[in-house]
Amino acid sequence: MEFSIGEVAALLGGTVQGDSSQKVNTLAKIQEAEKGSIAFLSNLKYEQYLYSTNASAVIVAKDFTPKEPVTASLILVEDPYTSFTVLLEQYQRMRLMAKVGVEEPAYLGKGSQVGEGVYRAAFSYIGNNVKIGNNVKIHAHVSIGDNCTVGDNTILYAGVKIYADCVIGQHCTLHSGVVIGSDGFGFAPQPDGSYKAIPQVGNVIIEDNVDIGANTVIDCATMGSTIIRKGVKLDNLIQIAHNVEIGSNTVIAAQTGISGSAVIGENCVIAGQVGIVGHINLIKGTKIGAQSGVSKSPEKENMAIQGSPAFDYKANLKSGVIFRKLPELQERVAKLEEKVINLSQS
Amino acid sequence: MEFSIGEVAALLGGTVQGDSSQKVNTLAKIQEAEKGSIAFLSNLKYEQYLYSTNASAVIVAKDFTPKEPVTASLILVEDPYTSFTVLLEQYQRMRLMAKVGVEEPAYLGKGSQVGEGVYRAAFSYIGNNVKIGNNVKIHAHVSIGDNCTVGDNTILYAGVKIYADCVIGQHCTLHSGVVIGSDGFGFAPQPDGSYKAIPQVGNVIIEDNVDIGANTVIDCATMGSTIIRKGVKLDNLIQIAHNVEIGSNTVIAAQTGISGSAVIGENCVIAGQVGIVGHINLIKGTKIGAQSGVSKSPEKENMAIQGSPAFDYKANLKSGVIFRKLPELQERVAKLEEKVINLSQS
Amino acid sequence: MEFSIGEVAALLGGTVQGDSSQKVNTLAKIQEAEKGSIAFLSNLKYEQYLYSTNASAVIVAKDFTPKEPVTASLILVEDPYTSFTVLLEQYQRMRLMAKVGVEEPAYLGKGSQVGEGVYRAAFSYIGNNVKIGNNVKIHAHVSIGDNCTVGDNTILYAGVKIYADCVIGQHCTLHSGVVIGSDGFGFAPQPDGSYKAIPQVGNVIIEDNVDIGANTVIDCATMGSTIIRKGVKLDNLIQIAHNVEIGSNTVIAAQTGISGSAVIGENCVIAGQVGIVGHINLIKGTKIGAQSGVSKSPEKENMAIQGSPAFDYKANLKSGVIFRKLPELQERVAKLEEKVINLSQS
Repeated sequence: MEFSIGEVAALLGGTVQGDSSQKVNTLAKIQEAEKGSIAFLSNLKYEQYLYSTNASAVIVAKDFTPKEPVTASLILVEDPYTSFTVLLEQYQRMRLMAKVGVEEPAYLGKGSQVGEGVYRAAFSYIGNNVKIGNNVKIHAHVSIGDNCTVGDNTILYAGVKIYADCVIGQHCTLHSGVVIGSDGFGFAPQPDGSYKAIPQVGNVIIEDNVDIGANTVIDCATMGSTIIRKGVKLDNLIQIAHNVEIGSNTVIAAQTGISGSAVIGENCVIAGQVGIVGHINLIKGTKIGAQSGVSKSPEKENMAIQGSPAFDYKANLKSGVIFRKLPELQERVAKLEEKVINLSQS
Repeated sequence: MEFSIGEVAALLGGTVQGDSSQKVNTLAKIQEAEKGSIAFLSNLKYEQYLYSTNASAVIVAKDFTPKEPVTASLILVEDPYTSFTVLLEQYQRMRLMAKVGVEEPAYLGKGSQVGEGVYRAAFSYIGNNVKIGNNVKIHAHVSIGDNCTVGDNTILYAGVKIYADCVIGQHCTLHSGVVIGSDGFGFAPQPDGSYKAIPQVGNVIIEDNVDIGANTVIDCATMGSTIIRKGVKLDNLIQIAHNVEIGSNTVIAAQTGISGSAVIGENCVIAGQVGIVGHINLIKGTKIGAQSGVSKSPEKENMAIQGSPAFDYKANLKSGVIFRKLPELQERVAKLEEKVINLSQS
Repeated sequence: MEFSIGEVAALLGGTVQGDSSQKVNTLAKIQEAEKGSIAFLSNLKYEQYLYSTNASAVIVAKDFTPKEPVTASLILVEDPYTSFTVLLEQYQRMRLMAKVGVEEPAYLGKGSQVGEGVYRAAFSYIGNNVKIGNNVKIHAHVSIGDNCTVGDNTILYAGVKIYADCVIGQHCTLHSGVVIGSDGFGFAPQPDGSYKAIPQVGNVIIEDNVDIGANTVIDCATMGSTIIRKGVKLDNLIQIAHNVEIGSNTVIAAQTGISGSAVIGENCVIAGQVGIVGHINLIKGTKIGAQSGVSKSPEKENMAIQGSPAFDYKANLKSGVIFRKLPELQERVAKLEEKVINLSQS
């Protein structure tokens, strides 16, 4: 996608100083920008870069006056940072929504319905009786099992795998390698020491506005549904086990694992590499530090916890400081023992 | 798949009270069941749900008499829980085995043999000289490298990747995104600080009745084989390094990592996010708590260990309790020091 | 690939004792070797296996004389270990580079260029305006987004996913399920408690000689580039967040996670399941023990750290030893308290 600097200025309601006919096709930081990109200058501590940048255009405040010659064209606006953000979002939306239509070969099963404005890449696979909403983007090597539903404006990046019977909401983004609906990890021990798989016949329901990072896995429920509520944001390589429910607007960082049947409250913030035990009911607003192991919910909302096993964040920090000095503490105890023996003998 | 309630009752050797011609197509918990599903009532503390459920049929004990009117048809059997389990397994098997035949385009390399009752989805890829047993289910975007063997009744879900020369047993289930046979992580340091890859020319052997969770990775051996013995159950996002051997009927939960050349005994139970050091020989029956880091095997079988580094489970719990109170313990030591000084001066 | 023992000996500049016309097609350890394979004997503590091995040929030192009859042919060379290594590397290279040409159907977008000696498997997907160098191997279900570049001699195993605008160097190996360029995990909190995705418009740059393990994920930069410098070796299931930079020849083991905007120095060695905080500047040559949580760089180069939170490796070990004995330490403190009370009352 290419635009002239003049077109960009018009979009932002700004004016151009310099050549407005030049073409731009990307956005960049002023200190890294190459020819063909637009940068912005808001915080004046970066002003020096304006005079050496390779950007084709720089968005500046309309009352800004350069102190040295500038090769880039300037786009003058009220608030450069806000304008740049508008541009970023517009650019992102255009990139994401640009692809439309079907590249052959793409597979579409029997009885499946596809909305308008949909992109189906070559080698994308849609099973039987699937419903695909409008403007859904289905990239290469996506596989959607029988009887699934995918809501409007959802993006499925290359290699997303959705098992049969799952429901994906609107305005969701699933990144490459995401797996939705794989079997829960349930096995019944047999008398001979072997294990027999417990049938997993439930599904996964993903509500609207959910983002799921690359190679994250969400298992189906044993029966019923594993549920990811609206607005949840999941990072990469996360494990969500069977029958978990994650409350709306909860954010979870990479490589965290949630065990079976855990119920995670709304608006929790969970850092990376955390492990959460099964069947827990984690109270809303809980904040969990990285690498924590959580086996018990805080009693009150909005508490911060840390450690494996996790407890109050600050108390954990204090214990951690003493842990480092354990050799010293042990030494102090040894000295005390010596002194007390001496005292008792004196 | 749809059945009449009468057909289901016949399968279970039960009798129907109510409309036996209605169609059912899924199984559900009595408190969550929708129209078209079969539920069961075994524990009478759930009896209340019988009178409000939307299930089309409920399996009950043949000596059970409802106290209120019931809209669902009843299927009367000897033992409702066992009957429901039978139904679940039957349903699961039918779902898993329903797909047969080839969807085009599917790729089949030279010299490869495919058994009977096999499903090869569109965009599935089978290399050269591969042997596929009977009733194998190969879903979309599965890739099977040259010279591999896949045993009877094994299911490869969408996006499974198997490198050349690997052997997969019978009755195995590999979930989406599983990678089998990627290079072991072996690099020889060079004088200039760079690393040179050590050739990895071995393979992976997966014996019968092994389940492998989504996005789990099993590296090939440097030479020889990485071996997963019969009946092993692996959860999602697990890392199995080169030349590892996992003993039969060992169960490993999500996000655990096993380092190179580790030998894991039979019937171990390893929780999630555990790390196991390379070249260890972990004794059979060991139980390892979540997030543990294991660098040494217990000396006796069937021990439970915990912690990073891991040691006896109960001892670790005790140390963990004191860890939380370290500030208090430090305070006690400080007070003692003060008192001892006072005593020695008195 | 099959060779006669005579051809192998010629390659190694060695001579054959026994049948030089027999065919061999793989390499193995002497104690595990089957018919058709070549083994070697360097360390004489393995000599016993020479007399029972099923190998078709064994590479031995030219001054070696067997004490018992040997069924295998012998290849006599100066240094058996070195010769075997040469053979391994040659074998590996031939295996990796054997596939050439296009298997149909393979997708190639508009304006894309493909070099010589390239392999494009069935169901491989190359978007628009992509540049593929010479001898690149693109296995099944690889997806390469628009405007990407892939350097000469790079191998992309089955199911690698590369988002648009990324740059992959020469002599790289990306294993199955690797995701390059997925969105960074950045969300701006909104007044109603929900989150809004921050546009991620940067890319990923992978320099030359980088190896990336299966199912590892590298997110794109918010703006600019996430950069993996030359010679970096990444194991499986690793998370590299947006805007990270990893210095050349740094090695990272499986399941480690690097948070956003972290800069990792050259020649670091990072063990498995480590977590590294965002925006850190990790000094070069740092060695990090398994399962560590790193929130601060050592001040000096080439230090070893361990623990969560991580500090000096040896100091951590010492504290860990005392952690195990905390109940005993607590008991000692309790006894001291008792004694001190007795003393003060006496």
